[in-house]
Amino acid sequence: MNDFEFESPTHFAFGRGAERRTGELVRAFGGTRALLHFGGGSVKANGVYGKVVDALESAGVGYVPLGGVKPNPREALVREGIDLVRREGIDFILAVGGGSAIDSAKAIAFGAVYDGDFRDHAYGKDCRNPPVVKKAMPVGAVLTIAAAGSEGSCNSIISLEPDNLKRTLSGDALRPRFAVMNPEFTFTLPPYQTACGLADIFAHVAERYFTPTRGVAVTDEVCEALMRTVVSEGAKVMRDGRDYDARANVMWAGTLAHNNVCGVGRVQDWASHGIEHELSALYDCAHGAGLAVVMPAWMEFVMDADVARFARFAERVWGVAPGPDGRAVAKEGIARYRAWLESIGLPTTFAGLGARAEDIPRLAANLGLAEGQTLGRFRPLSAADVESLLSLAV
Amino acid sequence: MNDFEFESPTHFAFGRGAERRTGELVRAFGGTRALLHFGGGSVKANGVYGKVVDALESAGVGYVPLGGVKPNPREALVREGIDLVRREGIDFILAVGGGSAIDSAKAIAFGAVYDGDFRDHAYGKDCRNPPVVKKAMPVGAVLTIAAAGSEGSCNSIISLEPDNLKRTLSGDALRPRFAVMNPEFTFTLPPYQTACGLADIFAHVAERYFTPTRGVAVTDEVCEALMRTVVSEGAKVMRDGRDYDARANVMWAGTLAHNNVCGVGRVQDWASHGIEHELSALYDCAHGAGLAVVMPAWMEFVMDADVARFARFAERVWGVAPGPDGRAVAKEGIARYRAWLESIGLPTTFAGLGARAEDIPRLAANLGLAEGQTLGRFRPLSAADVESLLSLAV
Repeated sequence: MNDFEFESPTHFAFGRGAERRTGELVRAFGGTRALLHFGGGSVKANGVYGKVVDALESAGVGYVPLGGVKPNPREALVREGIDLVRREGIDFILAVGGGSAIDSAKAIAFGAVYDGDFRDHAYGKDCRNPPVVKKAMPVGAVLTIAAAGSEGSCNSIISLEPDNLKRTLSGDALRPRFAVMNPEFTFTLPPYQTACGLADIFAHVAERYFTPTRGVAVTDEVCEALMRTVVSEGAKVMRDGRDYDARANVMWAGTLAHNNVCGVGRVQDWASHGIEHELSALYDCAHGAGLAVVMPAWMEFVMDADVARFARFAERVWGVAPGPDGRAVAKEGIARYRAWLESIGLPTTFAGLGARAEDIPRLAANLGLAEGQTLGRFRPLSAADVESLLSLAV
Repeated sequence: MNDFEFESPTHFAFGRGAERRTGELVRAFGGTRALLHFGGGSVKANGVYGKVVDALESAGVGYVPLGGVKPNPREALVREGIDLVRREGIDFILAVGGGSAIDSAKAIAFGAVYDGDFRDHAYGKDCRNPPVVKKAMPVGAVLTIAAAGSEGSCNSIISLEPDNLKRTLSGDALRPRFAVMNPEFTFTLPPYQTACGLADIFAHVAERYFTPTRGVAVTDEVCEALMRTVVSEGAKVMRDGRDYDARANVMWAGTLAHNNVCGVGRVQDWASHGIEHELSALYDCAHGAGLAVVMPAWMEFVMDADVARFARFAERVWGVAPGPDGRAVAKEGIARYRAWLESIGLPTTFAGLGARAEDIPRLAANLGLAEGQTLGRFRPLSAADVESLLSLAV
C-alpha cells in the first residue's frame, strides 16, 4: 500500500426531505448570501429549485440565481459567476443539480478568490499534472443526479473555450462543505441519463481498481463492493425509476466511488476519463455514454498488462467462474461489462455514440501527449496507443 | 435505506513516516500547546513517543505529557487530564496509542470545555441513549494499535469508578481532527493484542451489518468487503507481524469499520458491545477478547430473527456454499466465525476468558435494563435474553 493523505470533510444530509436542511447548512458553514447555481429548467419543473429557495429563505440566507449550466460546463458561465460573486458580495456558492452544476460552482468558488485569471492557474497546458487548488470559497451542493460524485470529490472539470478542451481543477479546498442528497430528486431522471450516471459511477471505481499497486486488499474489496452495487441496484433503477432504496443505494455508491475512500493508497489510472473528455469535448456527448464506449475498449487494450487483475474483476464483479485460462476469464469479464452497458441502453461503439472513426487521430492529438509522454498509470499509453485503443471501439 | 446525516472530517496521514506530520497537523488545527496523552511504557520503548515529541518540537508546539492510560480507560485519569488542561493553558489534546488513549483524550477534550461535571452529561444512567456531545476541544491521534477505530469515530468509552461501569460518550465534536497512521507502529504489537484488534474491527462491522433495515445494498456490500479483509489480511499479520501491507490493510479497515461509512442509513445493533463492556468492566479483560466470547453467542441466540441474513453472512464472508437449508448455512457461518477467532488465539468461552458462569446474572444486571427495556436493535434483548445468550458461551 502506498502512503496517502486523505480527508473527506463534506457533511452529508441524506434522505427524504433532506433539502429542508439547505438553508441552515449554508449558515452553519458561514454563508449569508449564496450564489444559487443551476442548469436548465428541470430543477424548476420538478420543484427542487422552489424547495431549495424556500429553505434558504426560512434560514434567512440571501441568494442570487445563476442558471444555465450545461452538461460539460463551460468557461464562459464560470467567468460570469466569478464576476457576479465579486459584484454582489456573495459568500457561499450553492449548486443545485448534478456534476455539471457542482463542477461549475467549484470553478467559480476557486476563481472568485484567485488572484489572477483562473484559467492560468488550473487549466494550463499540463492537464496530467495541474497545480493543487489551495483556496476556494465554500461550496454546497443539492444533488439531483447520481453520477459524477462531485458532491464529495475534490475535482472540477470545465470545458475551455473556444476549443471545448476539458481540463481538471483539483484540491481538497474544492470539496463541498455539505451535500444535500434526496434520492427522490432522481426519480424523474430519464432512463438514458440514469444509465449514463451508472456508467460514470462504475468508471470512477474502475479507474481506481485497475492499479499497479500491490497489497491493497481493503480498497480492492471496497472497489468490488461498489461495482457490484452499481450493477445490481442499477438494474433496479432502470426497471423502476421510483424505487427509492435502489436510487438511494446508487446515490451513496456514487459518492463513495469518487470521494476517494476506495482509492487511497493506490496508484490510479484515469486514462479512460482523459480519453473520454476528448470525446465529449468534440461531440458534446454525455460523459457516461462516452465512458461506455472508451472503457471496455481500454480494458481490452490493456488487459495483458495484468491478466490476473482482470480475471479477478471478472470473477468478483461479474460472477464469471474461475478457470485455468485466466485470459479467457478476463475477456469474459470485459464482455459482461460491455453487455451490461448495452443492457442499460448505452452505446459501446463509436457508431452508437455518433462519433466518427476518422476523428480518432484528432481525438488522440487533443490529449496533447508529446513524444515520450503517456496517459494512465495501470498501463501507460502513448498517443499511438490511444489511437489503437479507440479503434477497438469503432 | 434510512435517512442519515454523516460526516467524517478527520484528516488521515497514513503511511511510513507519517508521524513526522504530527506537529504541523496540530498547528494546522489551531494547537500551540498540546496535552500529550498516552499509556504505559510501550510507546516510549518502541520509539514512537520520541518521534512524536520530535515532530512537536520541530513545529514549535509545546506539550504537557500525561501518561498512564490503561486498557478500559478510567475516569480518574480523565479528571486529572481535565484539571491539567485547564491549569496549563492547553489548547489541543494529542493521543499517542490505541483506542484507550484516544478515548481518554476525547473524554478530556469534552470535559475540559463542559460547564459542569462531565460525568453528569454523558455518563448518566441511560447508557442506551446518551445526550450528543456538541462541543469539545480539538483532538488528534497518533495510532499505534489497529482495533478500536477511535481515530476516526465519534465515540469515547470510559470506565466509571468505583464500579468500573463502561459508558459511551458520543458526538461528531469528538471526531479527531487528524489521525497519524503509520502501520509500522503496529509491528511490535504482541500476537494476542493483534488478535484482539482483529476481533474488535470485525465486530464493529458486524454490529452494523446485522440490521433490520432493508434496501441497504451499498453498505451491506461494504460491510462484507471489510469483514473479508479483516479475515484475509488478519491471517497475514498473525503469520508475520512485520508484513507492512497486511498491517496497513488491517489499519485502514479498522478506521472504515468504525467511522460509520459502512453504517449509514441502517439501524445498528450494538448489543454485543454493550454486553462485552460489562465483561471487561468486571474482569478487566481485553475488549476484543470479550467480543470473541460474546459475539458468536449473540449470533447463535439471535439468528432465527433473520436466518437469510445469517446465511448471506455465511456465504459472502465465510465462503459457505449456499444450500436449501438456510439455517444450516447460517450455523456453519457462525461456526466458521468462532473457528476463526480461535485460530487467531482468542477465547470464545467464559472458561477461556477467565470469566465465571455464576457471574452471568450480575453481568446482565449491570446493563441496567429495567423491566420492558431492551438492548440491541437487530433482535432486542431483555435482561433474561442476555443471560440465556451468555450461557451459550460458558
